[in-house]
Amino acid sequence: MAGSEIANGNLEANETRGKTITCKAAVAYGPGEPLVMEHILVHPPQKMEVRIKILFTSICHTDLSAWLGECEAQRAYPRILGHEASGIVESVGEGVSDMKEGDLVVPIFNGECGDCEYCKCEKTNKCEKFGVDGMKKVMINDGSTRFWTIDGKPIFHFLNTSTFSEYTVVESACVVKIQFDGDGDLNSYIKRLTLLSCGVSTGVGAAWNTANVHSGSTTAVFGLGAVGLAVAEGARARGASKIIGVDINPHKFIKARAMGLTDFINPRDEERPVYERIREMTGGGVHYSFECTGNLNVLRDAFLSAHEGWGLTVILGIHPSPKMLPIHPMELFDGRRIVGSVFGGFKGKTQLPHFAKECMHGVKLDDFITHELPLEEINKAFDLLTAGKSLRCLLHF
Amino acid sequence: MAGSEIANGNLEANETRGKTITCKAAVAYGPGEPLVMEHILVHPPQKMEVRIKILFTSICHTDLSAWLGECEAQRAYPRILGHEASGIVESVGEGVSDMKEGDLVVPIFNGECGDCEYCKCEKTNKCEKFGVDGMKKVMINDGSTRFWTIDGKPIFHFLNTSTFSEYTVVESACVVKIQFDGDGDLNSYIKRLTLLSCGVSTGVGAAWNTANVHSGSTTAVFGLGAVGLAVAEGARARGASKIIGVDINPHKFIKARAMGLTDFINPRDEERPVYERIREMTGGGVHYSFECTGNLNVLRDAFLSAHEGWGLTVILGIHPSPKMLPIHPMELFDGRRIVGSVFGGFKGKTQLPHFAKECMHGVKLDDFITHELPLEEINKAFDLLTAGKSLRCLLHF
Repeated sequence: MAGSEIANGNLEANETRGKTITCKAAVAYGPGEPLVMEHILVHPPQKMEVRIKILFTSICHTDLSAWLGECEAQRAYPRILGHEASGIVESVGEGVSDMKEGDLVVPIFNGECGDCEYCKCEKTNKCEKFGVDGMKKVMINDGSTRFWTIDGKPIFHFLNTSTFSEYTVVESACVVKIQFDGDGDLNSYIKRLTLLSCGVSTGVGAAWNTANVHSGSTTAVFGLGAVGLAVAEGARARGASKIIGVDINPHKFIKARAMGLTDFINPRDEERPVYERIREMTGGGVHYSFECTGNLNVLRDAFLSAHEGWGLTVILGIHPSPKMLPIHPMELFDGRRIVGSVFGGFKGKTQLPHFAKECMHGVKLDDFITHELPLEEINKAFDLLTAGKSLRCLLHF
Repeated sequence: MAGSEIANGNLEANETRGKTITCKAAVAYGPGEPLVMEHILVHPPQKMEVRIKILFTSICHTDLSAWLGECEAQRAYPRILGHEASGIVESVGEGVSDMKEGDLVVPIFNGECGDCEYCKCEKTNKCEKFGVDGMKKVMINDGSTRFWTIDGKPIFHFLNTSTFSEYTVVESACVVKIQFDGDGDLNSYIKRLTLLSCGVSTGVGAAWNTANVHSGSTTAVFGLGAVGLAVAEGARARGASKIIGVDINPHKFIKARAMGLTDFINPRDEERPVYERIREMTGGGVHYSFECTGNLNVLRDAFLSAHEGWGLTVILGIHPSPKMLPIHPMELFDGRRIVGSVFGGFKGKTQLPHFAKECMHGVKLDDFITHELPLEEINKAFDLLTAGKSLRCLLHF
C-alpha cells in the first residue's frame, strides 16, 4: 500500500462501492475456541455507516476476555472480534459527511454521536447511542449484521468495531478521520496510529484527562501490560518524578524500565502489603494510582497506595467478578478518591485527531509494538498476549 | 451575658486565669446511660491550648452515636461529650497568639494546625495532628486530661472539643476566633454561630466546597436532619433549581418545605426504588446527591440517583457497619463519582471566619434552632433528637 493511494483516495473503492465484498476474516465460533480464518460477505454501509478496509489490527485484553466468553451474557457466535485498528474508508453510507472514500481512519469502540446530552457535556465522553456496550452485537439502523457467512448466516458484530476482518462496517459515530501529518513514513505512521484506537489512548488519556497528572507528582501503575505502560508513558510525558510499576511478572520490568518507569515492585517479593511499601517510598502515598489488572485485591492496594487527603485512584481494569468495591464508605473520609476511566476520557471524534498529533511526537509509540504477524496467525497472537510476552502484536492483511 | 463584656474581653477571666476552675458539666458514665450533671474540675490550658467558657452547645448525631457507644473501640468513660458550641476565651496557654481572653470563638472537631502537609495543601481540610479522630480522648501535650472529678479521677475528652461543660480546654488548632460583625443582636448572633461549629458548616460546605453545586442544577438530599437540611440550604443559596428531599419521616417534610426544598420522596410510599423515581423526575438523575443517613442501602440509592456521566454523590453520613461500599467497580465506568466530605471541606481556622459572614446573611440559620433548654435538661435534648423532633436544641448554661 503506497501513501499516494491514501492521499488520493482512489484505492479500489470505486469498484466495490455499493456492493457486497467477499473478504477474509478471523471468526469466533465459541468461547476459547481458536479463531477460524474464513471468507465472509461484508454488506455495504447503510445510513450513517462507514465501510472500512482494515490495514492493521491488534489484540487487547477485552478481545481476550470476549474470546474466552468470560461474561456469559455477552457471548454471541459466530462473531468477529477486534476493536483496535487502523484503516481507510472504502465507502460511506447515506448522510456521512465528515469522511469520504480513501480517508485514513481509526475505529473507536466508544463512539461520539455529537448530538446526545452526554456528547454535548464537557464532563464526560459517554455517548448515549454509541458508547461502549459489551451487549451490542448488531447495527442500530436495522438491528441486523453487515457480516454474513458465504452460506447466508449472520455473523455478529463486536464492541462497535469488529476489526479482525479485511473489511468492516462501523457506525460513523465510531470512526475518526485522522490527517497524516506528512512527517516520516506513512506506513509506520499508520502502525502507530493503530495503538490510538484503544490501548494507548486509554492509558495516556487516563493519565492526562482523568487524573490530570502534574509535573513532579508520584504515580503507581498496577499491571504493566500495554495499557499500564501507556499510563506510565503518559505520566512520564507530564513530568511525573516517580513512576512505580507493580506486576507479578518480572519480565515486564525490563521493558518498563526502558519506557521510563523509575521503580518496580513485584508483590510476590514483598512480605508486606504493596500499599505499605509504596507509602514508604513516597512519603505517605502517591498522588495518582492506576488499576490496570481487573483484580479486586489489586484495586484495594491501588486505593490504599494513594495519599490521604488528595490521592486519586483511577480504575481502568475490567472487573468480571460480581463482588463490590473493597472500600469502606468511611475510608472516603480520608480524602482518597476513586474514579473510572473509559477510553482515557477522550471524546473520540472531537479529540483524537489532536491527540494523534501530540502522541506522534511526545509518546514512545513504537515501543508498544512488540510483534507483527499476518491475520492468518491471529491465534498465535492471542497466545503471545495470554503468556504476557507481547504488548501489542500488529496483525496485517 | 452582655455584649460589652465580650467586646472588652474582661469577663471574669482575670480571676480564673492560671487556676483550676470548678464548674458544671454533663458527664457520660456508660453507653446509653443518662448523662449526669456534675461539678467537675477544669485545669488551666497548657502550651498551645485554650480554655473556653461555653455559651451555647447543641447535640448532633455524632454525640448520639458516641453516647450510645455504637463504636466499641471508641468508648471511654467517664467522658464529656459535645462538639458543636460557641463560647468565649477564658484564658490561653503558652504560645497561643491568635486569640486572647474575651474573644468570641467556636470549637472545631476537625482542627487545622497550619503546619502539616495537609494544612499546607489546598486540596484537603485534613490535619495530621488535629483532624477529627474518634479514638482520641486525651490532650496531645501530655497525654492526660484537663477534666477531673472532684475526687481526683480523670474525665476523658471527646472529638477535640468536649462542649457539654461550662468550661472546656481545647487545643488552639481546634478553636476559631470569630469577629462579631456588629449587625443585629449579639446574643442571637452567638446562637447562630453555634451551628457553624458542626452541622451547618458540614452541610452547607458539602454543597459549596465538596460538590460545588451550580446554579440551575438538580440535587437530592437523603436524610432531612440538620445536616441534610443544611445541604439543601446550601444548594438553595447556590441557585439549584430542584432540591429533592428523601426521608422516611414525613413530619420532616413540613420544615423542609419551609426551608426551600422543592420536592419530597418518602421511600415508604414508593413501590419502585427511590433512584428510579428521582431519575424520572430529573431527566435521568440529579447533578448532585448527598447521603446524610449512614445507611448503606440509602447510599446505593443516592449513588444511582445521580446522573450517568457527571453525577456526583457526596457521603456525609457516618457508617458504623463494617460492610463495604455497595457499588461495583464497573459502575464507576458510567461516570458517576462518589466522594466523602468532612466538616464541609472547610479548613476551619482559615475559612470559618469568612464563612460565618456569608452565612449570617445568606443562610436561614435561625430555622435550624428548634428548641432551647438549660444544660441541666440535656437528656431531654437527646430524647428530642432521637425522636426526630428537633433539628438543633441549643443548651445554655
